[in-house]
Amino acid sequence: MSIRVAVNGYGVIGKRVADAVRLMPDMDLVGVADVASDWRIRTAVGLDIDVYAATTPATAAMREAGVSMAGSLADLLGQIDVVVDTTPKKVAATNLPSYRAAGVKAVLQGGESHATTGHSFVAQANYASAVGRDLTRVVSCNTTSMVRVLGALQGAGLLARARGVLIRRATDPGESHQGGIMNTLVPESTIPSHQGPDAQTVLPDLDVVTIAAKASHTQTHAHFWTLQLTRSASRQEVLEALRAAPRIAFIRMTDGLTALNTTVELMRDLGRPRGDMWEVALWEDVLSVAEAEAFLTYQVHNEAIVVPETIDAIRALSGTVTDGATSIAMTDKALGMRHRFLPAPVRLHDRVH
Amino acid sequence: MSIRVAVNGYGVIGKRVADAVRLMPDMDLVGVADVASDWRIRTAVGLDIDVYAATTPATAAMREAGVSMAGSLADLLGQIDVVVDTTPKKVAATNLPSYRAAGVKAVLQGGESHATTGHSFVAQANYASAVGRDLTRVVSCNTTSMVRVLGALQGAGLLARARGVLIRRATDPGESHQGGIMNTLVPESTIPSHQGPDAQTVLPDLDVVTIAAKASHTQTHAHFWTLQLTRSASRQEVLEALRAAPRIAFIRMTDGLTALNTTVELMRDLGRPRGDMWEVALWEDVLSVAEAEAFLTYQVHNEAIVVPETIDAIRALSGTVTDGATSIAMTDKALGMRHRFLPAPVRLHDRVH
Amino acid sequence: MSIRVAVNGYGVIGKRVADAVRLMPDMDLVGVADVASDWRIRTAVGLDIDVYAATTPATAAMREAGVSMAGSLADLLGQIDVVVDTTPKKVAATNLPSYRAAGVKAVLQGGESHATTGHSFVAQANYASAVGRDLTRVVSCNTTSMVRVLGALQGAGLLARARGVLIRRATDPGESHQGGIMNTLVPESTIPSHQGPDAQTVLPDLDVVTIAAKASHTQTHAHFWTLQLTRSASRQEVLEALRAAPRIAFIRMTDGLTALNTTVELMRDLGRPRGDMWEVALWEDVLSVAEAEAFLTYQVHNEAIVVPETIDAIRALSGTVTDGATSIAMTDKALGMRHRFLPAPVRLHDRVH
Amino acid sequence: MSIRVAVNGYGVIGKRVADAVRLMPDMDLVGVADVASDWRIRTAVGLDIDVYAATTPATAAMREAGVSMAGSLADLLGQIDVVVDTTPKKVAATNLPSYRAAGVKAVLQGGESHATTGHSFVAQANYASAVGRDLTRVVSCNTTSMVRVLGALQGAGLLARARGVLIRRATDPGESHQGGIMNTLVPESTIPSHQGPDAQTVLPDLDVVTIAAKASHTQTHAHFWTLQLTRSASRQEVLEALRAAPRIAFIRMTDGLTALNTTVELMRDLGRPRGDMWEVALWEDVLSVAEAEAFLTYQVHNEAIVVPETIDAIRALSGTVTDGATSIAMTDKALGMRHRFLPAPVRLHDRVH
Repeated sequence: MSIRVAVNGYGVIGKRVADAVRLMPDMDLVGVADVASDWRIRTAVGLDIDVYAATTPATAAMREAGVSMAGSLADLLGQIDVVVDTTPKKVAATNLPSYRAAGVKAVLQGGESHATTGHSFVAQANYASAVGRDLTRVVSCNTTSMVRVLGALQGAGLLARARGVLIRRATDPGESHQGGIMNTLVPESTIPSHQGPDAQTVLPDLDVVTIAAKASHTQTHAHFWTLQLTRSASRQEVLEALRAAPRIAFIRMTDGLTALNTTVELMRDLGRPRGDMWEVALWEDVLSVAEAEAFLTYQVHNEAIVVPETIDAIRALSGTVTDGATSIAMTDKALGMRHRFLPAPVRLHDRVH
Repeated sequence: MSIRVAVNGYGVIGKRVADAVRLMPDMDLVGVADVASDWRIRTAVGLDIDVYAATTPATAAMREAGVSMAGSLADLLGQIDVVVDTTPKKVAATNLPSYRAAGVKAVLQGGESHATTGHSFVAQANYASAVGRDLTRVVSCNTTSMVRVLGALQGAGLLARARGVLIRRATDPGESHQGGIMNTLVPESTIPSHQGPDAQTVLPDLDVVTIAAKASHTQTHAHFWTLQLTRSASRQEVLEALRAAPRIAFIRMTDGLTALNTTVELMRDLGRPRGDMWEVALWEDVLSVAEAEAFLTYQVHNEAIVVPETIDAIRALSGTVTDGATSIAMTDKALGMRHRFLPAPVRLHDRVH
Repeated sequence: MSIRVAVNGYGVIGKRVADAVRLMPDMDLVGVADVASDWRIRTAVGLDIDVYAATTPATAAMREAGVSMAGSLADLLGQIDVVVDTTPKKVAATNLPSYRAAGVKAVLQGGESHATTGHSFVAQANYASAVGRDLTRVVSCNTTSMVRVLGALQGAGLLARARGVLIRRATDPGESHQGGIMNTLVPESTIPSHQGPDAQTVLPDLDVVTIAAKASHTQTHAHFWTLQLTRSASRQEVLEALRAAPRIAFIRMTDGLTALNTTVELMRDLGRPRGDMWEVALWEDVLSVAEAEAFLTYQVHNEAIVVPETIDAIRALSGTVTDGATSIAMTDKALGMRHRFLPAPVRLHDRVH
Repeated sequence: MSIRVAVNGYGVIGKRVADAVRLMPDMDLVGVADVASDWRIRTAVGLDIDVYAATTPATAAMREAGVSMAGSLADLLGQIDVVVDTTPKKVAATNLPSYRAAGVKAVLQGGESHATTGHSFVAQANYASAVGRDLTRVVSCNTTSMVRVLGALQGAGLLARARGVLIRRATDPGESHQGGIMNTLVPESTIPSHQGPDAQTVLPDLDVVTIAAKASHTQTHAHFWTLQLTRSASRQEVLEALRAAPRIAFIRMTDGLTALNTTVELMRDLGRPRGDMWEVALWEDVLSVAEAEAFLTYQVHNEAIVVPETIDAIRALSGTVTDGATSIAMTDKALGMRHRFLPAPVRLHDRVH
């Protein structure tokens, strides 16, 4: 029997989660709830997704705007097993009582605090501890990428200390007409920024400090890391530890993928829905190791990276799959995730022999 | 029997034409040719498209880079009926002798001059005159949009004179790391700009003057028109003349589609491949008519708008469909083109009755 | 005796007006008032300008922040003849009672409505009608430029009808970290936009329609005009009518001034304070005339263009100079305004003969 | 007797050096040489600077364009003691023979290699070793800032190891219509980037690694540093070491200086020529120290920071001032450089007592 899922908040993350749920063989998307009544929610109607009004004022606004509505949030909660709350920052915490009252499990997002859920989730790191829980929180895009990459190195016994600079996109493409920064760079006013401690909610032993800033672009974050290793290591050892982890894809400057926009274009070319890149894209040929220090750079598609994690979190809470690796494999296959975006080069001798 | 098609030049336009050809029920994509050997062409390999080297140096470069190659451009031309040349500006003219030698028909793009082909093409305006020709030129994105919109009003006997300001994107998203403009606006150095005369290669009687400039964004053009009508007309008359034309979609500010990026996001949400908008998106609620003057604004997705025109041009040259409306309908259905991107509002009484 | 002036609102316009007042031989800047207590107002202190707190909360905030304060707005108003109100949009109207109570004359800015003051001001158009008034409004940057340019042609009997597209900067450079648009263009939702009617508050007989949009840059507006002339005219006639007007400077694409940023750089190179361009910069070699139609493009430095107008408005209200041309000449000389930014080319024969 | 100076290359750096030379009490600007014949060089003419043609083709082009010329580069070199070569990257090396032939000393810029000059210069670090030399190279803007800041900490015995991420502006404002990046971020393809080794040409014992990227803005660089200290230190100790160095100015987020553009605006407000910031602007309240690690962020105005260093280099080569601190003080006073841009807060008790 399929897991019955709702998405509350049909925004940047919510609409992607809704699509992903529809691609999973073991899940049904019962509907989405939102407060918008403009093109954003009418698009969902056009995709044959049942739309519910998240609040009483939203009901009136949707009716006024002629949005085809299937009912209220309460109606939706009555039909499901797990709700994914992708409402704006700090709203989810106020929704928890309704979720409890309806007896549904809930996956929150990284805008909420760890304390709100008592559990923070990244599939490769702690799937097992979420199995059967009522509540978890998928950490933010930046934190997810850090757990994937730094966690892989920590898991391999290679990582002593991580110091990172996170250059974030200023706003999302679909909202860039309303706010954002222009021709500037905005450093966060405090070092360390919050992402380090946030990663420690998943990997408590990580020695990590982050510095963050917003730059004048709308697409994807870039992280630059200086890593103190536990010992002198070869570049190959570091690469292999990263290759062993799921959801990290390797890209290369020498393939012409030299900037954030080229990878974004590659996703469009691959036919990815909305041009989404669920993987961390790590520049293989930029990675540099000198004695016990490693330096690396990767790209994070902030609109998309938490989508597979959210799918796994749904499955973990539902209790239907107890093994993290199994869930990750199911999710990645259904989405079409990869370790490598380009076909391997064909060498002449390969074809001769 | 299907029309056998090749695409020479797997860039911004070429890769989209290749995809579109693969969607057509009456066409086969035999292969694509290019000179690149980096991620751009390897993406085609990954999509199971046969790749040919466009030149002798390209053959060597592709082999060196390990790109799986099916042969040379000459090999490709030997297997097809129509080639679409989407090589960079001014290159296509130098390719014509090869096309003639191979006995294949050719569709060129708007970067080439009208004189090179003797025929300039926009499906709704002059499909018939291209039927069976050896050669045509699909006009540029800006010109195509002008022919669609101004041509619709001219065809309805409403348009006396058109004066437009064209604010162009500065470069394409996939190439924005290499060149472009930053925090400025660059007016063209001459008025009129070339787009007016270019539209007259398709609609000779159009009284049109354009002023053009590049703005600091990468996605889509915006056109702003002041139209002198042949007589006082109502807003409704103007709208109806536009609605009667194919490939114009109406959007509304009041739906929240208030800026170029919102429409781009809508295309992503609709699941369009690469987020493409083949239609001219005309703001219905901005259109204003005062006595014998009309003012209107629309958005042109420069990466995508010529794709359906190119498909029709292939069909016209091939001679397999002689009626323009039939070809347009085939193309538009296969691509999923629309007059309206959002579902119509549902009104309460609609549901009651 | 000098005109004693205060500036209320030390923002983008106010700080420039304060500087300009200090440059005038017939004016004294008594002080500036503001509500900010951060770097912006502390800069004024550093420039030895007396700072007053505009409100009671501002007094507390400035004291808390350690801003050296000379007193309250009431204290300031008690020492002056004319106040320039450069507070944010719609605030000035609420300040009028205080100004009246203090018996001071007031110059408001274009964010306020014409109805608030009953008089709208552009020096070259209607200086005389402001002489001795208690109140006037210097129209906005866009409107000021329109009155200068279109008014010059109308005054020469050449202009029948003006249709313009105004591409505005999205936000100012000093505020671009807080809001703005990114990688998009935002058309105004209504045609005509408000600038046409606004120009008619100064030039009632102008037949003008404007279409406006915001583009993704922070520096200066660009206007693109299609002008119906009263008769067929030569390019030379149009140029001469424009040359006869004050505060229009001619620039040329062929001098390498090909984009908004190049003119901004030129102002820096000329040593202009804050890089200000008080003139409308009109591209002489882009101006095109065909029979009874003219097309032209100019650039408007929105941070600076109203500064000389505001100076003239102070003088007009004060009644000390009754002739507009005299005031304009005084202002322009003190600021260093020009009709031409570059030295005239030297020709060999000029030097030989 | 004044040092007679020429500037060869009137571009972004050259025009600023020319202005600065004119402000120095002990220097005369004899003239500038360039190859441009457009607005850029005509601006120099307008500023009453004697212009020389840098090459024979430039002589013809300037004559054609009507640029008032004082002679050839050879003519200029015959009248001076020191030439500052600010021609584009890699050109200066080809000019050296002419400089030697003319018997003039030469200051090159950071685009040239250390090997070309055998000496790399930052005034606070190694003025003395340049005294009387024929040739030196003022290192690049990024390197200069690193030597100032890291050198100050190294000099205080506090710095063990520096790891930095340098987010560079993509192009300069005056050239942003011709090339640049849009809505993306471009990481350098290699770690370490060249700035670390470049700093070691001035401070050979520095243990430094840099990672660099270009971001989508035109104004100033931002550096983010993780510093391993030689021992646990207090925040105060680190600050004091930085305060003891010249040419570092402290700014604060809490003063509202929260982004690159706010500091740029502050420079405009301070009346700086061209809005130049010659100081490194270091965020005092972002600086964070934890045991033996320090984290800091500063801003580098790439157009301006090397100007005072270049002035000092001229003086060092000339041999007229042998003490670095004396030269730095002369330069800084003439330019108006500061340690603090805002007046100190006034506290009530300060005024009472």
